Amino acid sequence: MSVSFLENLEKIEPYVGGMPIQELSRKIGIPEDQIIKLASNENPYGISKKVHKAISEYEEYFLYPDGSGFDLVNKISEVFNLKPNQIVLGNGSNDILELCARVVANHESEIIFSEHAFAVYGLVTKAVGAKEIVIPALDFHHDLDGFFKAITKKTKLIFIANPNNPTGTLIDQQKLFEFIQKVPSNILVVIDEAYEEYLEAHLKSKVFLWLEEFENIIVSRSFSKAYGLAALRVGFGVGSSKTISKINQIRQPFNVNSLAQIAAIESLNDLKFVEESAIKNNEQKKILEENFNNLNLLFIKSYGNFISFSLGSPSTALRCYEYLLNKGIILRPISNYGMPDFLRVSIGTEEENKIFIEKLTEFIGNTK
Amino acid sequence: MSVSFLENLEKIEPYVGGMPIQELSRKIGIPEDQIIKLASNENPYGISKKVHKAISEYEEYFLYPDGSGFDLVNKISEVFNLKPNQIVLGNGSNDILELCARVVANHESEIIFSEHAFAVYGLVTKAVGAKEIVIPALDFHHDLDGFFKAITKKTKLIFIANPNNPTGTLIDQQKLFEFIQKVPSNILVVIDEAYEEYLEAHLKSKVFLWLEEFENIIVSRSFSKAYGLAALRVGFGVGSSKTISKINQIRQPFNVNSLAQIAAIESLNDLKFVEESAIKNNEQKKILEENFNNLNLLFIKSYGNFISFSLGSPSTALRCYEYLLNKGIILRPISNYGMPDFLRVSIGTEEENKIFIEKLTEFIGNTK
Repeated sequence: MSVSFLENLEKIEPYVGGMPIQELSRKIGIPEDQIIKLASNENPYGISKKVHKAISEYEEYFLYPDGSGFDLVNKISEVFNLKPNQIVLGNGSNDILELCARVVANHESEIIFSEHAFAVYGLVTKAVGAKEIVIPALDFHHDLDGFFKAITKKTKLIFIANPNNPTGTLIDQQKLFEFIQKVPSNILVVIDEAYEEYLEAHLKSKVFLWLEEFENIIVSRSFSKAYGLAALRVGFGVGSSKTISKINQIRQPFNVNSLAQIAAIESLNDLKFVEESAIKNNEQKKILEENFNNLNLLFIKSYGNFISFSLGSPSTALRCYEYLLNKGIILRPISNYGMPDFLRVSIGTEEENKIFIEKLTEFIGNTK
Repeated sequence: MSVSFLENLEKIEPYVGGMPIQELSRKIGIPEDQIIKLASNENPYGISKKVHKAISEYEEYFLYPDGSGFDLVNKISEVFNLKPNQIVLGNGSNDILELCARVVANHESEIIFSEHAFAVYGLVTKAVGAKEIVIPALDFHHDLDGFFKAITKKTKLIFIANPNNPTGTLIDQQKLFEFIQKVPSNILVVIDEAYEEYLEAHLKSKVFLWLEEFENIIVSRSFSKAYGLAALRVGFGVGSSKTISKINQIRQPFNVNSLAQIAAIESLNDLKFVEESAIKNNEQKKILEENFNNLNLLFIKSYGNFISFSLGSPSTALRCYEYLLNKGIILRPISNYGMPDFLRVSIGTEEENKIFIEKLTEFIGNTK
């Protein structure tokens, strides 16, 4: 007999991340420092100097982390004007998304999310044995009316990505509010705001202000993007104290490592770094958009730190991906998001983007 | 309506770790550097200098970790003579234990483990909605005959801790082998070897040698104990390629942070540090045992880096815990392990142990 693994695992294709720099270096023999990775929506400006200082002063590697994340939870509560019992820390926001599924959904449940939405929603749905209800996108946007119509008695969870990755689309706050008003209050609504920091002031999320009114919403936030802490793994969830306490029941006791906690605290002490990263990102985004226009490449207007652009066919997209790889530039193919004609490029520094555009222009020229 | 949380969560009491130093410092107003924490089985000798150097040279905090853990997996495979596809990395070995439950067990399953065994087994069992089958211990030891008799068609997983925490007891390798031979091969057997590094040569685990013969065993190992990397969160699982691939299907793609991967690799390049930590631990363990004997305190012979000793009654144990807390010494109460008369002390440095024994002797003297 072989081990009786759960049947729901059969359908799971593990997540494919951006190719690590080391992996491409091994593959094509280019030194690591000559490789440009624009594949994982990281912050190309690194981390704040304050964070770097705090990390370099850390010594107590042999001690377990504070499992309650006391200091970081308090810092988040102070910065975002929340109560500590509305906050839970995650090993990246991925951990928060998974925990949300695991507190409400099992083999009898349905979980709703959009076509072209972040891949982890499907993965955690399958992992808990629930049924995926994937709502077709409207021109790459979430169709919230479609979400609402798909709600059944079995619906336990709705994932909304705002902005969404990999499309970069944004839902208007008023529309989102109206949707949440309509959703039955027994259904947990996860609003994934991993790219919130890149939004301009007039577009910022107001969801934290709705927490009093709606006990069934939970926001996930990430330190992996604009804060520049992807390597360390830390994110957080914000919801009703009831939801947070349920998540704490099954959260791994030491899910967030000590250095991540310290770095996240210090990054909240230097929000100027985050704001400046967002400003530079948005300037560079405009330049990339102009270049895509010049190259007659269709792209989706993005509110994040990445742009998905179309090469017109799956085969051209694949050839373009490989052409750039061989030049030491890593993008992200997104055929697994139902977008095989597209590639997603993370917005790099001015210099990185210049090289990317140069090589992309070369590729387009060659294929004409 | 309130959110429909899963019913199986009702029964879960979250894990209670050792009190963090900062927390005691806040509570009783003693500076952090005057507090001795002997509560979480950490390595009081810190980390290897090589590890420290590798950590201090790290810069790429803004990049995602290598989700496949390529370099660390290869290093583990080299050091322990395993194939890379027999290895999976975890965010601490806690992550491995949880993933094992999540690939085989659901609300229809039973999971077997021992009374007084590591608390996480019960937590992950409840979190997947499975039934806990807790086998009464025999004088604090795992009763493997009892385990075998408890197997039913619903049994999907067996947790064995060797050595066990918090009792410190060890199962003889021959007995363990005979048990595994008898267990139906569709049941996953997890052998948790978090304290393996503290065993003397003639007692070391041989389980890696049994992997060819038994596809249904998986070993979990930790870098949080003798390797001194508790703050960073990294452990690993070793099993058949089939089991590892199932775990990879639901493992969070970036579950192990970059610094943990680098530190773990470097710690495997300095096994001398680990061996020396174990030798010092075992010397200090003898001294603590002598002191417990002198104080007429019953203790359980331990094969780990901790000793559980009895104060004779739950109320005395609690008073002793609080007496020591007020002196700045943190032990671990283990009433939640069904051992309310006991306290568990992690074996510290010579200096830490001296202070602990001095204050414990004071307490015993006061209570006479």
